[in-house]
Amino acid sequence: MNNLAQVHQLNPYAIQLCATGRWIAQRHWVPATGGNFSIRSSAQSCLVTASGKDKGELSPADLLQVDFDEISFSCQGKPSAETALHCALYRHYPDAKAVLHTHSVQATVFSRLISQPQYCFDGYEMQKAIQGIQSHQQALLLPVLDNTQDMAALAAKVTQLAGTQTLPYAFLVRGHGLYVWGDSLEQCKRHLEAWEFLIACELERIKICGLV
Amino acid sequence: MNNLAQVHQLNPYAIQLCATGRWIAQRHWVPATGGNFSIRSSAQSCLVTASGKDKGELSPADLLQVDFDEISFSCQGKPSAETALHCALYRHYPDAKAVLHTHSVQATVFSRLISQPQYCFDGYEMQKAIQGIQSHQQALLLPVLDNTQDMAALAAKVTQLAGTQTLPYAFLVRGHGLYVWGDSLEQCKRHLEAWEFLIACELERIKICGLV
Amino acid sequence: MNNLAQVHQLNPYAIQLCATGRWIAQRHWVPATGGNFSIRSSAQSCLVTASGKDKGELSPADLLQVDFDEISFSCQGKPSAETALHCALYRHYPDAKAVLHTHSVQATVFSRLISQPQYCFDGYEMQKAIQGIQSHQQALLLPVLDNTQDMAALAAKVTQLAGTQTLPYAFLVRGHGLYVWGDSLEQCKRHLEAWEFLIACELERIKICGLV
Amino acid sequence: MNNLAQVHQLNPYAIQLCATGRWIAQRHWVPATGGNFSIRSSAQSCLVTASGKDKGELSPADLLQVDFDEISFSCQGKPSAETALHCALYRHYPDAKAVLHTHSVQATVFSRLISQPQYCFDGYEMQKAIQGIQSHQQALLLPVLDNTQDMAALAAKVTQLAGTQTLPYAFLVRGHGLYVWGDSLEQCKRHLEAWEFLIACELERIKICGLV
Repeated sequence: MNNLAQVHQLNPYAIQLCATGRWIAQRHWVPATGGNFSIRSSAQSCLVTASGKDKGELSPADLLQVDFDEISFSCQGKPSAETALHCALYRHYPDAKAVLHTHSVQATVFSRLISQPQYCFDGYEMQKAIQGIQSHQQALLLPVLDNTQDMAALAAKVTQLAGTQTLPYAFLVRGHGLYVWGDSLEQCKRHLEAWEFLIACELERIKICGLV
Repeated sequence: MNNLAQVHQLNPYAIQLCATGRWIAQRHWVPATGGNFSIRSSAQSCLVTASGKDKGELSPADLLQVDFDEISFSCQGKPSAETALHCALYRHYPDAKAVLHTHSVQATVFSRLISQPQYCFDGYEMQKAIQGIQSHQQALLLPVLDNTQDMAALAAKVTQLAGTQTLPYAFLVRGHGLYVWGDSLEQCKRHLEAWEFLIACELERIKICGLV
Repeated sequence: MNNLAQVHQLNPYAIQLCATGRWIAQRHWVPATGGNFSIRSSAQSCLVTASGKDKGELSPADLLQVDFDEISFSCQGKPSAETALHCALYRHYPDAKAVLHTHSVQATVFSRLISQPQYCFDGYEMQKAIQGIQSHQQALLLPVLDNTQDMAALAAKVTQLAGTQTLPYAFLVRGHGLYVWGDSLEQCKRHLEAWEFLIACELERIKICGLV
Repeated sequence: MNNLAQVHQLNPYAIQLCATGRWIAQRHWVPATGGNFSIRSSAQSCLVTASGKDKGELSPADLLQVDFDEISFSCQGKPSAETALHCALYRHYPDAKAVLHTHSVQATVFSRLISQPQYCFDGYEMQKAIQGIQSHQQALLLPVLDNTQDMAALAAKVTQLAGTQTLPYAFLVRGHGLYVWGDSLEQCKRHLEAWEFLIACELERIKICGLV
């Protein structure tokens, strides 16, 4: 109860994140308790979904407060196994307010088709749904990272990548799923829909035209 | 409030358009705030969805009054970026009462497969859902226009096309999506369902038989 | 009102048919006001959906009483354009109580892939959902008829076919859709689900293995 | 009534199983009254869905008490035709609390593509949703058994298989569907989602890359 009250006090978007989770679950993008979500609660803290919860049945009490500094994070309770990755994104992007990680069939299959470290999306009007993009002719490079159970290593890899190139508010982990973030939960959800759409389109195109 | 009252006064179909938007969003045809809708409110005006709104969560206050003459249009507020295209259709087709523009995966993928300026649909009973078609043997030519961020140019292209051939109440914009219109909102929705169906069928057929 | 009262008096399943229509519409199997349904109301009459109605929004008043004899049928109002086909089935199969006709993407695409007059389904446990089938090894031959706008001719073709072979409570019309029937509305709905499933499976299989 | 009261007395999860059935039906994984579910009610008994019921409309009264020993089972009423298979799983796995059997398009199509007796899933993060799996690099071997109408023979085959190798809480029956189990109904549902996801992914991959 104290925990729940604390959550509400810290972040009025906690309930909104749970609603977003139900919406995502209805799209079948977080099956089998997969995926994880977070919202920033301060410069050095965020609320992360607890491990093993059905993401379509979240309540604010399922969001755990995680405090982080430049090196590590701490949490009372058992947050998502991929909390290190969420913290890495909040550290690197001070404006990031929300992170959504999903396991859709389309993103999972697509990520395994791409053997190169990134994939170029070009010519889709939908690219404009990504913050800062003004035209379907501004190509987007989506990173595709190898999966690993070593989350610290994956977080370091993402941090390094983000330091050397402009990421399109998203990356894929091969055979695993999609990470997106945004400067608000609303923008983050828009980025999620846009990337899942773009990936679904390319997967359909590849079925017909093959991989280039 | 004044604006909302005005909308209701002008057009009793405003609420119906919002309901149609929810139905379309449930089909996943307007992801990431994509797409835009309008209804005619007079010979030289229409109500157009405001820019950036989630099309599954529209209320009448999200519909902006747009006045147009033969050359230009004006609007208080920020209507959809593609308002010029809606006005072009209402100008050219005096009987058009509604325009729906969607971003489905199937229409987007299909539009990029077709390198020619139009595609012929033939042999589908569903063709009869398009106003004026009596038989599956009346072939329909669906235009596929190149996408551009210059909406005035795209609107001029559509106007020119509509002046030289009978359009099947629809056209595609490559990599972008589908436009449909109708002599009533009900007919327009029927045209939308019919075209999304026909495009979905051809995309499936092409997966098996290849592009002819 | 009189009409509605009459419908209820004649057939307690009228409301159930409307509910079945909503269920079918939610599966997207009757887009754009397509498809039509009926239930038998006596040895020589049935209730058929009125022409042009959205099949997901039916009320009993949208079901029109159709009387038929061995040769023709009559109806007050405008029943579905394919009423002749429904009557032909009720005439030939005295036990048939319901007929459902749908326009799914999968059945439409499949019907155009098959150039032969029938297609053999074998090896699916789901075949047992068809009345009288006890094993996945009892092959089912699904007729695929050419589409025509001459409904009397199509009805005659179906009658002739039904007189010369055992039909699996279903047939396809090429580029048009699926017809199923059953000895009760419940069985008819089961046949619909089973055939749409079997067709969906074969379509997926053909995408990978090609047409044999 | 007595029966219903007895069911509730025996197993508080009866209502939860009916809710799970509605959820599964909404995924279209038990069409045409297909599939069957059970929960263990004691060391030598379980509740199994009655034959021929729509699995999306179950109530606790549709769950029949089945008593089994090492050799046979008995039941008042007509339980699912595949009850022998459920009993075999409960016999072999003392910790198994629930069994779910589904007929999805994807699992059915996939099962017929695989001519070998098992299929290897590797490299998917989703593998970790299966109890005991810690890494995407722990490969899972999913058995694919030939279908038969002789349920005693199929049950014996499964028992034999389970005695000689570690099964991944699931197996496929060719042209028929998927069986999953779990140490709780919640875990069983998670296994179901995970396996349907993994199978859907591989089916998509095979469409693009072909069978290896």
